[in-house]
Parts: sequence; C-alpha cells; structure tokens
Amino acid sequence: MNGQPDIEYFRGDWPAQKTYTFAYPPALFRLESGKSLGPVTVAYETYGTLAPDGKNAIYIPHALTGTAHAGTFTDRPEQEQGWWHGLIGPGKVFDTERYFIVCSNVLGGCYGTTGPASLNPDTGVPFAMDFPVITIRDMVRGQKYLLEHLGVKRLVTVAGGSMGGMQALEWAVTFPEMVDSVIAIAASERLTPLAIAYNQAGRKAIMNDAEWCRGNYYGRTYPVGGLALARMIGTITYKSKETFEERFGRKLAGKEHDVYNFFQDFEVERYLNYQGSKLVKRFDANSYLYLTKAMDLHDLSRGYPSPAEVLRRIVGPVLLVGISSDLLYPPGEIRGLAVELRRCGVETDYRELQSTFGHDAFLIEYDQLATHIDEFLKKRA
Amino acid sequence: MNGQPDIEYFRGDWPAQKTYTFAYPPALFRLESGKSLGPVTVAYETYGTLAPDGKNAIYIPHALTGTAHAGTFTDRPEQEQGWWHGLIGPGKVFDTERYFIVCSNVLGGCYGTTGPASLNPDTGVPFAMDFPVITIRDMVRGQKYLLEHLGVKRLVTVAGGSMGGMQALEWAVTFPEMVDSVIAIAASERLTPLAIAYNQAGRKAIMNDAEWCRGNYYGRTYPVGGLALARMIGTITYKSKETFEERFGRKLAGKEHDVYNFFQDFEVERYLNYQGSKLVKRFDANSYLYLTKAMDLHDLSRGYPSPAEVLRRIVGPVLLVGISSDLLYPPGEIRGLAVELRRCGVETDYRELQSTFGHDAFLIEYDQLATHIDEFLKKRA
Repeated sequence: MNGQPDIEYFRGDWPAQKTYTFAYPPALFRLESGKSLGPVTVAYETYGTLAPDGKNAIYIPHALTGTAHAGTFTDRPEQEQGWWHGLIGPGKVFDTERYFIVCSNVLGGCYGTTGPASLNPDTGVPFAMDFPVITIRDMVRGQKYLLEHLGVKRLVTVAGGSMGGMQALEWAVTFPEMVDSVIAIAASERLTPLAIAYNQAGRKAIMNDAEWCRGNYYGRTYPVGGLALARMIGTITYKSKETFEERFGRKLAGKEHDVYNFFQDFEVERYLNYQGSKLVKRFDANSYLYLTKAMDLHDLSRGYPSPAEVLRRIVGPVLLVGISSDLLYPPGEIRGLAVELRRCGVETDYRELQSTFGHDAFLIEYDQLATHIDEFLKKRA
Repeated sequence: MNGQPDIEYFRGDWPAQKTYTFAYPPALFRLESGKSLGPVTVAYETYGTLAPDGKNAIYIPHALTGTAHAGTFTDRPEQEQGWWHGLIGPGKVFDTERYFIVCSNVLGGCYGTTGPASLNPDTGVPFAMDFPVITIRDMVRGQKYLLEHLGVKRLVTVAGGSMGGMQALEWAVTFPEMVDSVIAIAASERLTPLAIAYNQAGRKAIMNDAEWCRGNYYGRTYPVGGLALARMIGTITYKSKETFEERFGRKLAGKEHDVYNFFQDFEVERYLNYQGSKLVKRFDANSYLYLTKAMDLHDLSRGYPSPAEVLRRIVGPVLLVGISSDLLYPPGEIRGLAVELRRCGVETDYRELQSTFGHDAFLIEYDQLATHIDEFLKKRA
C-alpha cells in the first residue's frame, strides 16, 4: 500500500491503494461554506492505463458509505471485490483495457480521505464536529485536484449511483468543459424532504447515543448502537416492500413456540440488526453525519440564478437511470429531470431498471445497468 | 373524574373519565402467551346512553398512541376535543343521540389502563420489562370484560383505524356473535415486514437511550431522546411524500445565509423534532415498546387451521377503508383482504380515501370517512 491514511482511530476494511495530498497551508482548500481546509488528503484507486493524451479517463464517485475500491485488482486476488465489480474490469462496460478508471473516497469520508476522524492540524486531535460542513460540490472540486495530479485532461464519463450520481451531475455542472458525458443512477438534483427526514432520523440515532459525546468518541467507546440504528433506518429505505416480503415475510428468527418472548426478533429484524452491526465495524459515525448532511444540503442549482440556467451548463449527453422500486429517488422525479434537461437542450436518455430491489438495485442489477450504459457509451464512440 | 389510574410515574394529558378493574387474584386474566395478569384496570369513556336492551353500542378501539378520549364531552368545554371528534357526537356519523359509544385505553397503554408503567402487585414497583407481552387479541378480550360490565349486549359496529382497525377485525373473529358489523380503516390482518422493520427501528431508538435502563426509568430520567426519535421515525411513515413536499419542501428552519451550519434544520426536521418532543410529554416509552410489539405479533389467523377458516368466522358485514397514499398499510393489501373476505362469504365493502395525507388520513379526512361510514351503516339500518 502506497501512502497511509492520516487517521489514527479508524481505518476502513479496504484502505485505498494510493493517496494524494493537496492544499498545504497557506494555500488552503476553500469550501462552498466559505471555510477553508488543508492539507486535504484524497485516497484513491485507479484501474487501467491513462492514454498519453489524458482523455480516456472515467471518474466513478461513490455512494454514502462507499470506498475508493470500486473495481477489482485482478493481480491481487486476496483483495475483496470492489463495490461496482460487475461494471469495472477487463471487457466490462467500464473496460479497464480501454479506459483509465479513477475512484476516490469522498471528502468527509473515513476511508483515507480527510474527514471528521482526521487529525485537525490546528489542535492535533481529530476534528470531530469541528470539521467544517462539506457539500457535494466540495467533494467534486476536491476530485478535480486529484484528476489534475494524475494528468487526466478529459473524462469520457462520470458515472455513479445515489450520492455518487449526485456527484456525477455536479461534475457536469461545475466542470462542463472536462466532462464528455454523465451517467447518474438513482439520483436527482436534490433530495426530497422525505429523504431528508430519513437522514435526520439516522443522524439523531447517532447523536442520541450517550457514547457519541458530541463527536469526541475517538480513542474511547464508539457510538455503535447509534450508528447501527442509523444504518438500520437507511437499509429500510434502500430496499423495497417486495424485497422484505420475498426475503423475510413474517418468519421469526427463533422458534415459533417462543413467539411471545419480547426479545425474539422477526427475520427482517435480525437482518437489519446484522446490517447495522456490519456497518459499525467499517464506518465512522461522524462521517455518517457529515455525508448525510452533504446530501441533504445538496441542490444542483444553489448559487445559480435559476434551475434552467444550471442545467444549460451541462454539455451532455446525460444518461439518467431510475429504479422502478426506489423509495428514496422515485423514478418519476428522475424522469422529470430528464424532461427538464431536454427542455434545456441537453441530450438526455432516461432508462429504468425493472427491479424489486429498491434503491440498492444500482449495486445489484449489473446486467440491466451494463446494457443501458453500454448502449449509451457506444452511441458516443 | 371517577377513579384514578393506578400508575404513579406517568399520567396522560387526558386521563379517562372512568376506570373498571377486573381479574382480581386468584381469577387472573389469562393472556394469549399463557401468562396471567391481574388485577387489570381499564380506563374508558362513554358517550350517549345505552338502550335498555343493551344493543345500541359501538366500540371504538384506538391506535398506537391513542387514548380513551375519542369523542368530546359537550358539557365539559374545558376538555380537549377527542381524537375522532369529527365522527363522534350528536348528529355525527357515530351519533351520540342514537348510539352508546365506548372507547377504552388498550391493555399495555399508559392512559389509565394496566400497562408496563403500572405497579406490579408482586413487587410494588412498576412492571417495566417484567410486563408480559400482550397481543391485539388480549386487548380485545379485555375490552369484552368492560363491555359486559357496562351491560352491552351487542355492538352495532366496532370501528377503528390503524391499530384500532386491527382490533376491530379481531373483535369480529373472536366475538362474532356480539359484533353486528366491522369498520376497519387503514388496517389489515397482519403487518408487512416493512412495517415491522419501522417498528423495530422505533424500539431500538428507545432501547438505545442510556436513560432507558432496561425499562427501569420510572422515578428517574425518562428516555426522552429515544422516544422522540421513535416518534420521528413513526411520523415519517404516517405521512406521505406529498405531504412533506407540499408542507415543507426544502425550506430551512433558520436563515438562508446560515445554511452551512451543521445544526441548522430544514423545516421538515424541525417539524419532526416537534412531533417527537410532543409525544415525549404524553407517552410512556415502555408502552411504546409493548404496543408496537403487539402490532408486529398480530396475525388475525394465528391459532386457526387456515386464514380462510378465520375469515369465515366473521359474520359481517365488513367495511374496509384504504388510503390512497398509505405507506404502512398499502391500499392494495386492504383491497386484497376485501376480496378474500368476499370469497369466504363475508359481505364486504371496500372504499378508498383519496388523500395525500398518508396513513394519518384516518385522523384527518372526516368528510370522506363520514360519507363511507354513513352509507355502510344506513344499508344496515
């Protein structure tokens, strides 16, 4: 591994292959909020080779609890498969024999990129809640520094799902001259108030945990109960009614004769407990707070005179993908965005994953995704 | 007020008008779980006058955090309006000049009926988590004792929404000979796994609270943060996407220039915080645990050879009412139950409230409800 993430108390299961640090004082990274941050370390991975003209790159932004490990290193079989392994690899839709694929951990994350668990250079202890509020736009602007450092001149596409899709759209608005196309899956220009409400419940779960200590739990007991509950709430919204019914129904986790035991769970409860306990081992609670806040605050048109004006900045083409059973980013909203984009003169395709997996389908329905993405990229080739 | 609720640490805002106590030792009340409980106090209110033949009664079971105060006492203007005031009263659909209306606080509740906050006669301290698991069937069987005590011979109808609708259906199955008709609104024979998942998240929120102390918080600090979060999660599911959008959109609670303040809320968050803080003042956290558990465990056909067999017990007629925007009890499921009931030979009407209020519509859409209920009752008169 090349370059240790500079965080002391938390380390992801799959630390990124490489890191790049920029914004050394006094040339700090100025955030959308007006606050400044620096130095900023970005943990990243790359797959494939950059062409001499620097124009065969694809950037893959990740979702809420994702990492820079989107693809799979074929020469390192001991490593886990990346979170988008079905799409990234030799001969796959994001073909590593053709493209130079870059994925980095987001600003505010906990997998090697500077975030609330990183040491605050002013105090020598982790930032915790002294970390500044960051935005999707800040994430994207940080990624731009990384791509410049790597010699990337243009992006064939920026492709992501959920919070990754929000970043993909933001890339097309903030750096239109660099982005040849955009693929945003299960994502829109801004969250609905319902999605904000769910994120709030997750944050409350963490902040209610007595171990959270206003964020200063590093080196002490982690707020595991709170983070597990936040994940549980999140997981409910990432699935669909159908998934829960097909997979768990009303089956008890234990014995039928013990049904009146208050502490016996249904299978669905056991599953959600398990998802909670899994995340706790691999994620930082303060990062969860900052990243959900970044999602809530995100509004593609913030700071622009009108929503139409911001959409007209996008050069396109754009592929928007909705998921038929998505509760968080209802397909109707994404279809609506496609209509608006076309009205603003942006070439836009809308495709819909037919899936009962809910929002999670962007991490599962590889065949459908590959078909739509392949068709979209081939039209351009 | 006639009869003090026998709980020491918690008292609802609207203590019921009257109480009735039964199951004095050694003749304890045997629960569905096989455990026994007694004495059992039921807090209740009545509106109107019982006919000499005892056959003009209507029973109104309440929903999760409801009380016995369903109607309004016209001679006591200082009292708050009951939770179904739009339906219960002189000249209203549940006409107090014609019917004798009874509503009681459910077993396991915290408004005067025996529940986890009540004193355990064996120990002299509140039951807390030593309270036995109770079921919807137990609630209904307890209500039967009350109605016998009041001299009620037959029920013109049992009408309720949500957990109240589950009780209404259970009444028709457990005491078919006493129930002339059933009105179940936004309720079905059993919860979906998705609804169980939300209830679990609410319970976790309470049990994660350091002040919960395995339920033994009476006389100490209440687990207010946990209960408020549980209510927040619940409230999200009681509303619809449309309600949140129309009512709050993405408006900030504070100043626009302060948008990057981590602790500034969106309006939707402020509203959910407010709902949480309101419930905390009027509800017992352990009751919340036991009542959501009772909902999760409820299965109309438990203990019967087949679902058809249990539906055939219902004499009917039945009015089922779905809500077009209900996330918790999707109208499709309720329509499905209507089909099954008819297949079992039970005269069943299905009506749907056209509403963007979500599950909460059963407490809001009085005009539509009154029309459907009136039509249903008139057919029988």
